[in-house]
Amino acid sequence: MSTTKPLQFGVAGLGVMGVNLALNIADHGFTVAGWEFGAKRLQAVQADKQFERLKTTGSLEEFVGMLERPRRILLMVTAGAPVDQMMDKLAPLLSPGDVLIDGGNSWFQDTQRREKAYREKGLNFIGMGVSGGEEGARHGPSLMPGGPAEAYGHIRPVLEAIAAKTDQGACVTHVGPGGAGHFVKMVHNGIEYADMQLLAETYDVLRRGLGLSMEAVVDTLAEWNQGIANSFLLETTLQVLRKKDPETGKPLVDLVLDKAGQKGTGKWTVQVALDLGIAVPSIASALDARNLSALKDERVAASSRLPAPQASLTDEEKQHLAAWVHDALYAARVITYAQGMRLIQAASREYQWNVSPAELARIWRGGCIIRAKLLTPLREAFTQQPDLPNLVSSDAFAPVLTRMAPAWRRVVGTAARLGIPVPVFSSSLAYFDSYRSAELPQNLTQAQRDAFGAHTYQRRDRPEAGFVHSDWS
Amino acid sequence: MSTTKPLQFGVAGLGVMGVNLALNIADHGFTVAGWEFGAKRLQAVQADKQFERLKTTGSLEEFVGMLERPRRILLMVTAGAPVDQMMDKLAPLLSPGDVLIDGGNSWFQDTQRREKAYREKGLNFIGMGVSGGEEGARHGPSLMPGGPAEAYGHIRPVLEAIAAKTDQGACVTHVGPGGAGHFVKMVHNGIEYADMQLLAETYDVLRRGLGLSMEAVVDTLAEWNQGIANSFLLETTLQVLRKKDPETGKPLVDLVLDKAGQKGTGKWTVQVALDLGIAVPSIASALDARNLSALKDERVAASSRLPAPQASLTDEEKQHLAAWVHDALYAARVITYAQGMRLIQAASREYQWNVSPAELARIWRGGCIIRAKLLTPLREAFTQQPDLPNLVSSDAFAPVLTRMAPAWRRVVGTAARLGIPVPVFSSSLAYFDSYRSAELPQNLTQAQRDAFGAHTYQRRDRPEAGFVHSDWS
Repeated sequence: MSTTKPLQFGVAGLGVMGVNLALNIADHGFTVAGWEFGAKRLQAVQADKQFERLKTTGSLEEFVGMLERPRRILLMVTAGAPVDQMMDKLAPLLSPGDVLIDGGNSWFQDTQRREKAYREKGLNFIGMGVSGGEEGARHGPSLMPGGPAEAYGHIRPVLEAIAAKTDQGACVTHVGPGGAGHFVKMVHNGIEYADMQLLAETYDVLRRGLGLSMEAVVDTLAEWNQGIANSFLLETTLQVLRKKDPETGKPLVDLVLDKAGQKGTGKWTVQVALDLGIAVPSIASALDARNLSALKDERVAASSRLPAPQASLTDEEKQHLAAWVHDALYAARVITYAQGMRLIQAASREYQWNVSPAELARIWRGGCIIRAKLLTPLREAFTQQPDLPNLVSSDAFAPVLTRMAPAWRRVVGTAARLGIPVPVFSSSLAYFDSYRSAELPQNLTQAQRDAFGAHTYQRRDRPEAGFVHSDWS
Repeated sequence: MSTTKPLQFGVAGLGVMGVNLALNIADHGFTVAGWEFGAKRLQAVQADKQFERLKTTGSLEEFVGMLERPRRILLMVTAGAPVDQMMDKLAPLLSPGDVLIDGGNSWFQDTQRREKAYREKGLNFIGMGVSGGEEGARHGPSLMPGGPAEAYGHIRPVLEAIAAKTDQGACVTHVGPGGAGHFVKMVHNGIEYADMQLLAETYDVLRRGLGLSMEAVVDTLAEWNQGIANSFLLETTLQVLRKKDPETGKPLVDLVLDKAGQKGTGKWTVQVALDLGIAVPSIASALDARNLSALKDERVAASSRLPAPQASLTDEEKQHLAAWVHDALYAARVITYAQGMRLIQAASREYQWNVSPAELARIWRGGCIIRAKLLTPLREAFTQQPDLPNLVSSDAFAPVLTRMAPAWRRVVGTAARLGIPVPVFSSSLAYFDSYRSAELPQNLTQAQRDAFGAHTYQRRDRPEAGFVHSDWS
């Protein structure tokens, strides 16, 4: 507070994510102004010594007045109507060329609308996905900004400074125009849902199916995490499984109620995918798994009416199931990333965003929740062929999927026999087997549609005839 | 045309469905006026002797003027904007108390909006699902009208006359207010998608997996259709599989390209289910199967890079696979209906529609595409317990699912090993096994969410503490 020199960067909304990002920015030598609406929260921030580097205020006018031009302001407010309310108050105080960055998980169509509306007013509106949770925000997130390319130049030095770093540079790139950044972050979260569910299924098959102790599960997963299955979410799984309840000394995870919540981006991913006609069954199944987990009381009641199958493992299964699950985890994870990338490519075509999948793989390698070793071959695949239609059949992944498929098939079969639900293992396998089937039985489906609804069909032997109708009676 | 006496019923839009419904109404002794916008189509209808009982016109004023009051008008125009355009032209010509029926597959929220808007103008707007295709429209459809209950009284005699009949009465009921009718029809179609995909998977496993000839598949399915698996869609499957190409003498289905189209109601079903937090994985998987079938060129290319597994059937599988598939088909079909009914119940609570699942089971028993023998026990289950949370654990279905589950599990395992995609068999099984699991591994998921995102969790041993957060490091 010793200078009247304009400050270089503003953060509006000083919740946990907001202050962490503000401190991260200040760490990198930028002077930071902070604004917060809530009087209590503002007081708390102002009273806390760790935030004294931030010049904070509850007055929007003062906040805007502190900033050098063109202003760079990061909004960290709740997605939805609060962003519009905030912008309604903020926009009249700004000058042409100022850059606003919405760092929340906004619906990408809202971002498309806002970017256009503020462009017409001379303001730059950037929708930016931020991944990495509180820890990432503080010490290095993965950042997915989308919006006007020219405005990106103004914020790039700050974003590159605060982003996570890998040997491939800072985990930030200009994703594309309009709502591209928020779209990509949404799909990132969709992949996260699927990968988390895969780890839950892995855990369930190892513990409930194979009967491993918690220690043995931890040892197994720790070993996997040294190899190609390495990922942040696998690390988090290990961290969670190792944690002991301070009071009882038991594994804390065993005391956690088996109901998983959600906040909406996974749901949006599946809904948009349906609109774009892109199959994302691994992500959809993961969402359903959370929805079904929430029905705890019903499940407990149903369990007494619908007994588990009387099945035990064969010697072969006892010996190999863990190794099979490793391959199923890796293969199904490839499928979930493949579905996500395909969805991003479809949206990029639809909205003319020109998103680079290889760049996404690069910026997801550090900082973000879905960082994983498989992003390295994934990036190579898209570097070699930017318009690769599907990772599943790429040089990078087709051989490993083929090698791992037998084990994956065994896991699905064994889990089915044991009565352990593996919705993402199995829906990913159905996706894989559908995609690699030159022939599918949807000729019957289309013929039925023609039989009862006159929806017509194409003939294999006469493609030039186009769509034809038959009397099937 | 020999009388100036007002006509009893009007049909606006004389496409195939429109004229068929009009003829059906006329068959039952009602005098019918028809209106058609397209001059060519109108000429064709007027020139065709089979339509001479209908008094048709291209003038909306004349059409409206022909009808007795309160007018009863069925709109058979394309769903979406055309309905609003039609209503904009029609509404000014109408009188308070007139009843408009939208018989298209309209988005239920549009129907909610229209019903409210026209109610404020003194008009009755009914959104009605019509199932049964052209044949059903002509000789007895299943009708799902929703809207003002008092207006239903005016149209009831006509609808009951034209609807399909079963030993449980006419296949029509007042579904509920607002958009209830169109919502229910949408879910009906979602169930239809899943059931059609189940039949495609059945066919694929029997023919590609078990290696049955077309004749043997037909014989097998024909036998099943005599038992509890009986359904209209199984009948249609048989009809399709029996049909020979008139030119080549080959089964016509073999000449149909394996790409299945869709028209939107299945997609809506899954999108709405996501908004309501209801898991409908069987319906979602069926949609994905159609989306993947459309990628014919990619599939052909991928098939050479991703070989099918080298697997053959065991003697046990050869002997029993067909019988197992029967049980898998029946059990998974129960799951798809269970998901659909649960979605309808959730929407009915959300929108206060008071929909009766037992009544739906009654009106779906005839005329409609998803009519099936299982609707009889399904109706009994909901008659005994109208707020039954899930058919899966009902007295009517829990025993049969338990009995059939072992076979169903074998089908999923065998198909996985053979590389035959069975997305609906397997996602339905995952749903079943999730629902009947008192314990699921989503404690790990929720713990992870708390570990990296501070999303909190509930403790099993201290439910009264509500949501708590732990430091997992």
